[in-house]
Amino acid sequence: MRDSHFEYFKTIVGDNDCFNDEAHIQAYCYDATRERAYPKYVVFPHNEDEVSKILRYCNDNLISVVPRGAGSGFTGGALPVNGGVVLALEKHMNKILEIDMENMVARVEPGVINAHLQKEVESLGLFYPPDPASEQYSTIGGNVSENAGGMRAAKYGITKDFVMALRAVLPNGDIIRAGKKTIKDVAGYNIAGILIASEGTLGVITEITLKLLAKPKFSQSAMGIFPSIDSAMNAVYKTMASGVTPVAMEFLDNLSIRAVESKFHKGLPVDAGAILITEVDGSLQEDIDYQIKKIEEKFYENGAINFIKAQNSEEAENLWFARKNASQSITIYGSKKLNEDITVPRASLPKLLSKIQEVSDKYGVIIPCFGHTGDGNVHTNVIVNGGDENELKKGHQAIEEIFKITIELGGTLSGEHGIGISKAPFMKLAFNECEMNLFRSIKKAFDPNNILNPGKMAL
Amino acid sequence: MRDSHFEYFKTIVGDNDCFNDEAHIQAYCYDATRERAYPKYVVFPHNEDEVSKILRYCNDNLISVVPRGAGSGFTGGALPVNGGVVLALEKHMNKILEIDMENMVARVEPGVINAHLQKEVESLGLFYPPDPASEQYSTIGGNVSENAGGMRAAKYGITKDFVMALRAVLPNGDIIRAGKKTIKDVAGYNIAGILIASEGTLGVITEITLKLLAKPKFSQSAMGIFPSIDSAMNAVYKTMASGVTPVAMEFLDNLSIRAVESKFHKGLPVDAGAILITEVDGSLQEDIDYQIKKIEEKFYENGAINFIKAQNSEEAENLWFARKNASQSITIYGSKKLNEDITVPRASLPKLLSKIQEVSDKYGVIIPCFGHTGDGNVHTNVIVNGGDENELKKGHQAIEEIFKITIELGGTLSGEHGIGISKAPFMKLAFNECEMNLFRSIKKAFDPNNILNPGKMAL
Repeated sequence: MRDSHFEYFKTIVGDNDCFNDEAHIQAYCYDATRERAYPKYVVFPHNEDEVSKILRYCNDNLISVVPRGAGSGFTGGALPVNGGVVLALEKHMNKILEIDMENMVARVEPGVINAHLQKEVESLGLFYPPDPASEQYSTIGGNVSENAGGMRAAKYGITKDFVMALRAVLPNGDIIRAGKKTIKDVAGYNIAGILIASEGTLGVITEITLKLLAKPKFSQSAMGIFPSIDSAMNAVYKTMASGVTPVAMEFLDNLSIRAVESKFHKGLPVDAGAILITEVDGSLQEDIDYQIKKIEEKFYENGAINFIKAQNSEEAENLWFARKNASQSITIYGSKKLNEDITVPRASLPKLLSKIQEVSDKYGVIIPCFGHTGDGNVHTNVIVNGGDENELKKGHQAIEEIFKITIELGGTLSGEHGIGISKAPFMKLAFNECEMNLFRSIKKAFDPNNILNPGKMAL
Repeated sequence: MRDSHFEYFKTIVGDNDCFNDEAHIQAYCYDATRERAYPKYVVFPHNEDEVSKILRYCNDNLISVVPRGAGSGFTGGALPVNGGVVLALEKHMNKILEIDMENMVARVEPGVINAHLQKEVESLGLFYPPDPASEQYSTIGGNVSENAGGMRAAKYGITKDFVMALRAVLPNGDIIRAGKKTIKDVAGYNIAGILIASEGTLGVITEITLKLLAKPKFSQSAMGIFPSIDSAMNAVYKTMASGVTPVAMEFLDNLSIRAVESKFHKGLPVDAGAILITEVDGSLQEDIDYQIKKIEEKFYENGAINFIKAQNSEEAENLWFARKNASQSITIYGSKKLNEDITVPRASLPKLLSKIQEVSDKYGVIIPCFGHTGDGNVHTNVIVNGGDENELKKGHQAIEEIFKITIELGGTLSGEHGIGISKAPFMKLAFNECEMNLFRSIKKAFDPNNILNPGKMAL
């Protein structure tokens, strides 16, 4: 039997960029959640015009469309839970269109990989700060759709702070531009602002204009070793409130330190309650020295037992090794890791971490924590034996309790991973009925037929 | 005859905060546009709950509501063009609710005056950078609704870059919170992002959570004198692209310099093509010296004929005098000033200014320009004899042509003043039908009965 939808998509993108075979369906049914949802079609558009034609057709025929970058999201944003079309943007729409040195702006297609852009602009003396852990494979389109963060957010902010303008296709096929290559633009509603972090539910982003900075000439890293997690968390917020703004202020708790050490034998301080790893940057060596000194002071004031300064880039890399390998190392504690990215106001970090310890004790699950404490963002990892139904249930109960604590402390369910399907059940903890109704009205304003990435964000 | 609406409003806010008398109607019928539109009622709510009750009632009874701060807007945002209620927030909802030193965050009611907040946080060693020219009287609620800029935007960004969270009342009376006291928050749509700059058309903002910075310890101002406007505009974007980011980089053209000089006799360089006034700040004196040196280099490279460094705060104030008095001084050229706040990518400034000169020649109107060139924002002032119909017509034609040039150069109709009613006729130059439809769909999602600040933004 002829599949008329499939035939139509082929007329738009060509026979070699439109598939419904098992290999493609398997290749585009997953993301970093390891959940699976099967598309009916996998389509690789070449440009905005093709995206527009496909969306218009799907809107008319009520076919679901899920835009997809690298599929590296942690909450199921790229999973086609209603089947339909996966619109895969990484194959053809992956070009850096312009690096405008005079205005310090880059214009890119959504499929450009974050690290490629960083490398390209750095070769010109410029700097694109957002550096999600997935930077080697995640795409700028995905970063914008989830509003990705990264280690440098403490000083430089997150993806949204760098998006100046977007082009996008609405579910009905309309092509819109939002924002300008200008620092200021207050004409019309801030459409770019609402497309960012909308997880592909409002429009398909086809072009992104990003602000660039000048690459700072100097940087230095350091590590503080703390007797307890409480002393480390106090040091974080007191340092940040002292007027110095490190690029990054990352932490590992004792469980995370031990995990990395047992796997890599780097001589880490396995008896420490926590370590903080930090980096500062600037255009003058004097400024670097000033910042490092200030951080050292604040760390010692808050009980640090040691403060190690990297004297060169090799030593810096050594200091960062623990942080960069924490995520993979903590799998030594169990077969399944339920990782979340809760975020609280920085001054609530001590309380958050002590409450997480209580949850760990209460449910008898271990919860290694590490993350971006400079901006209050903690990666909590509830570790369970995946094969044990009872333990899995306890793990999920522990997570629900951690979410409740986070909200009580004025925090958010997600600092950088988004909601997708994984956190959709918890939206009711964070938003009241009025707020959920408003989300649904906005979704309807953009996508009245609910064809674009349906089933996400508890809409 | 009893006015049942008026009676209802009195039951909510009390007899002393609800008016329909001539004095109040005259007092709340204008803003900085000098246009007039008369409300039927002026109501002064005390809190969010009262705002909610008034909106719910007005929504049910299809009565227009216009939220108002200081009424200092330049585009008619606070004018009640459909009559109805002016909801005046400056009388009671004007409290700084919290300055959280640990998280470096302020929480305020919408009626707080910008300069009061700046002063208060600076007394604690903190810093709220957005500094619109209206800072002495404009309110934070108004600043958020128009996304106000200011001189420091070149380095620190604009109001939106400091809004972490909002509370707001929707037209149906629903109370919502959007955002958190956290740097990162990606749960749900970015409602705060779309309320900012929505000019009071989507919701009434009742509480604002703002990011604060540490107050930089050192600063220095300097002035560059240029033979031509072209050399000055080249110096602006080449300085900004050189890696140094001044707090402010403001300019005056020859007409503006002469106007200030003829009014105040300060010894300004009346033969200069343009002057640039700049300020740098930082936490180290070495950093200040480095930045000033770099700017000096770039200015001379681009043809500056002199570079004057302020050696103390009195000298700095002298340098800034010209810029701060430009707006009032240029009235010497004619009785009516049609001022706009167009913004282009910085590297397009030389072209923009040369095109404005062509427009001036073509229509025979004089157009003094000054403004925030560090972020590409130019205040263009078409000066006409207000009593002369023909000259006024030429002035408006000149403005339309300037808007077209701005859009062609990738710029925006408004860098900081908003659209309101003044720029509504020009929205079609900047947005296509798809984009206007999207704006209207969003307006409808928030305000299906079109009761909130109707008749604005060409919706």
